Formats: sequence, structure tokens, C-alpha cells
Amino acid sequence: MPLWQIYHPTGTFEDNATKHAFAQDITKMYTDIGLPSFYVVTHFYKMDDENVFVGGKTNESGETPFIRIVITHIALRIPDVDAMYLRTTSRIDKIIKPYVADKGYDFEYHVDETERRLWKINSLIPPPHKSEAEQLWFKENRAVPYEGAYPAVLSQASI
Amino acid sequence: MPLWQIYHPTGTFEDNATKHAFAQDITKMYTDIGLPSFYVVTHFYKMDDENVFVGGKTNESGETPFIRIVITHIALRIPDVDAMYLRTTSRIDKIIKPYVADKGYDFEYHVDETERRLWKINSLIPPPHKSEAEQLWFKENRAVPYEGAYPAVLSQASI
Amino acid sequence: MPLWQIYHPTGTFEDNATKHAFAQDITKMYTDIGLPSFYVVTHFYKMDDENVFVGGKTNESGETPFIRIVITHIALRIPDVDAMYLRTTSRIDKIIKPYVADKGYDFEYHVDETERRLWKINSLIPPPHKSEAEQLWFKENRAVPYEGAYPAVLSQASI
Repeated sequence: MPLWQIYHPTGTFEDNATKHAFAQDITKMYTDIGLPSFYVVTHFYKMDDENVFVGGKTNESGETPFIRIVITHIALRIPDVDAMYLRTTSRIDKIIKPYVADKGYDFEYHVDETERRLWKINSLIPPPHKSEAEQLWFKENRAVPYEGAYPAVLSQASI
Repeated sequence: MPLWQIYHPTGTFEDNATKHAFAQDITKMYTDIGLPSFYVVTHFYKMDDENVFVGGKTNESGETPFIRIVITHIALRIPDVDAMYLRTTSRIDKIIKPYVADKGYDFEYHVDETERRLWKINSLIPPPHKSEAEQLWFKENRAVPYEGAYPAVLSQASI
Repeated sequence: MPLWQIYHPTGTFEDNATKHAFAQDITKMYTDIGLPSFYVVTHFYKMDDENVFVGGKTNESGETPFIRIVITHIALRIPDVDAMYLRTTSRIDKIIKPYVADKGYDFEYHVDETERRLWKINSLIPPPHKSEAEQLWFKENRAVPYEGAYPAVLSQASI
């Protein structure tokens, strides 16, 4: 569910071990709150300098690299309370720090939250958060059929 | 309007005929409810294994390929009724099945719904759903000027 | 904050000067309303014809190129008034015109609006619109620490 899309210039994240460690720390942010590890998908996209403009300018060689991260949250929606948003972005900051901020890169991220009911894994509806089925998915680290995973479509429904 | 972004590893969707058939089935899901065929845009992005992490791990050779699909709906917003969401995801499941599930791939998808009033094709406002103008767009399969396609901006408006 | 993701076929936007001019005009749309220049990020993605389907068909050579633009707005949410949406899309149309419409390309765009409180630049909360701090960011054209950029997370908060 969380999908992290990391757009980075040539010369950054060239090392697979760094990408691996970053993806593992991202994953831990979500497993720490009980979400199954396999929910967390991280994509790295290497961008040519000529295809990225910040403020209408490409990055010249020797300048500070700029990393743009797009995060999509689906499983959990943050309650509409300022402190909750702050807590979430603080967690993200901590994860990003060693891989981006501490390297001296500039960066920007935003989180988009989308409708949980429009989300499936292997055609199964992911179980409710903190349910027994979710704990099973966590433990098995894969989408396991459970009661409620295949609800019947109500016959009166139509688009 | 529906934009399907399909992120797949090397070794999957290598065959153009398969991509073509998949895109046609995706398109049919929307033309079946009266939307013009050219609204449906499908992108395939081939990802290197080293740039995709699921649960903090890259896919090792020989493992089950993982397909991540991001769908954006703009023209129609699903009514906030569980059965409507179920019906939509059931339709998506059916389309995905022969190309992804039946191949034994793992997959995940989510749908994001965005504001219809922030959407244009060739600078025209797409006509209201089930309007005569939409039927014209359907029949001609292109964006045709119609009354209402270029509304005047109200003069009192300002950001 | 505004992120413009421009998906274009081979044979379009091959010229760096054109991309540069387009990105500058995009940037101006936002600096004109007081947003700092460096907020505006533009990505170009060149797509192979075989990976893009419109209405289930790839573009054949010699056909009209199709440009798909995905815009994300974060800093400012458009008030829920038709005229405001119209004004925004009219501005976008004007920017796109010389680079896309006037070239005879087909195109489609949509804007997604996401939660401002889930957005940071260099781990700083971007200052409120029209604040003194925003003016400082505008003038310096970079993320500068200011009072309020690092709010304490309220202790009672929890996800």
C-alpha cells in the first residue's frame, strides 16, 4: 500500500546496497505499526538531468542533487488532526535523513492518500487494520485468502 | 481519463501483442459504460529488478514477478457506497486476470479518483457523462468542440 | 509543490531548449501568484510507442503525437467553485498552447490536489501562503529555516 516513488538524478542511488537499506528503512516505518512487510513497495527512477527542471532550470553538474519523492498511502488514512500529520512527516523525515538529507541532497516529498476500498492485492481485499487476518498476512508476509476477502458484489449495485 | 500505469519487471509484458490485448480489454471496461475509447490511456513501464523493492527486498531471479498498477479515474467518481467500490474492483480483477493473475504473477493495484473539473483534453472540457456531446465524442472517437466546451471564466473569479 | 509529469513520445520534446522554455513558462504560472520558483518541478518522460496505448491502440508512425500531463498541486487547494477551476485550467491551457497545442499534438491533462500537511521540502514545512516566510523563500529561492518550520509533534498524537 504505501508506494514510494523516488525520482533521483544520475550520480545518486547508484549503489544497490544503499537502495536496499533505504527500502528496508521505509518498510520498517510501516511494519512498526503492524502493516505487513510486503505492502511496502519502493520504486527508484533514475532521471537524466535534461528531463528534470526545478524552478525552470535543470541541475548543472556540480550542483546539489535534487530528489523528489512521491508517496501514496492507501491502507490507513491519517485522522484530520494537525498533530497526526506532523507525526507522519516526522517519521518520514527520520527515514529519509541518512539517505538523502545527510548526503547534502535537496529533496521534496508529498504524500497522497487514496481510497482504501479501491485497493486490492492479488485480487484480495486487504484485511482491516489490526484484524486477525491482517496479523496472518503480516506473519505469512503474503496475501492469504480469509473470510471477507472475496465479498459478494451486492446485486443492486451499478455504476 | 482513466490512466492505467503498469509497472512491470523485465521478463513480463515483453510481447507487444499481449500489451495490446491487455490495453484493449482495459479500454472495453470504460467503453462498456459509454465513455469514449480515446479517454483510456495505458502506460507500461518496464522496471529493472534493482529499482523495485517489495517489503525492502528486490525480486530475485526465479521468484514470482510483481506487477504494480496505478489507476487514475477522473471522468466518473464512484458513489460513496461499498457495493459500488466492490463492483469497480471486481471489474478490474476480471480484466487483470488473464494477463496477470493467470500468469501466476503477484500484483497490487489501487485507484485514485481526481477532480473532474481539473481535467481537459486538447483544451476542451470533456462533456458531461451521458450527454449528447459525450455520445458524439464516443462516435467520432476524438475531442470535438461542442457548446459548453469553452465556458467563459467568470470575471469575479480569482485564485 | 506543483509537480508536472509530462509523458511524451519519441520525436517530441527532443530539443532541450524547448523543454527548458516550457518548464520556465510552467514555473511562471506559479511565481505569478507568489509561490517560490523552486517549488515548481517539471519531469519529462520519453515513452516508447509500444508502451503507450490510447483507446487500446499504440500510436502508429505518422499519426498525431499524444502528450499526457499529470499535474499535482499541493501548496494551494482551489476553492470548490466552478469559476476557480475554470480559471486554473485556462491558465494551464495558455502555458501548454505554444509547446503542445500549436505543434498539432493531441494532449490530455489532469490536476490532482493533495494534502498540504503531508508535504515537506528539505524536512521543512513550507510556510503558509502569503506569509513573510514564504516571501523569504521566494526571494532566496530556497528552503530557509523560519519560526514554525519545525513544529514540535504534540505528545498526545499517535497514529
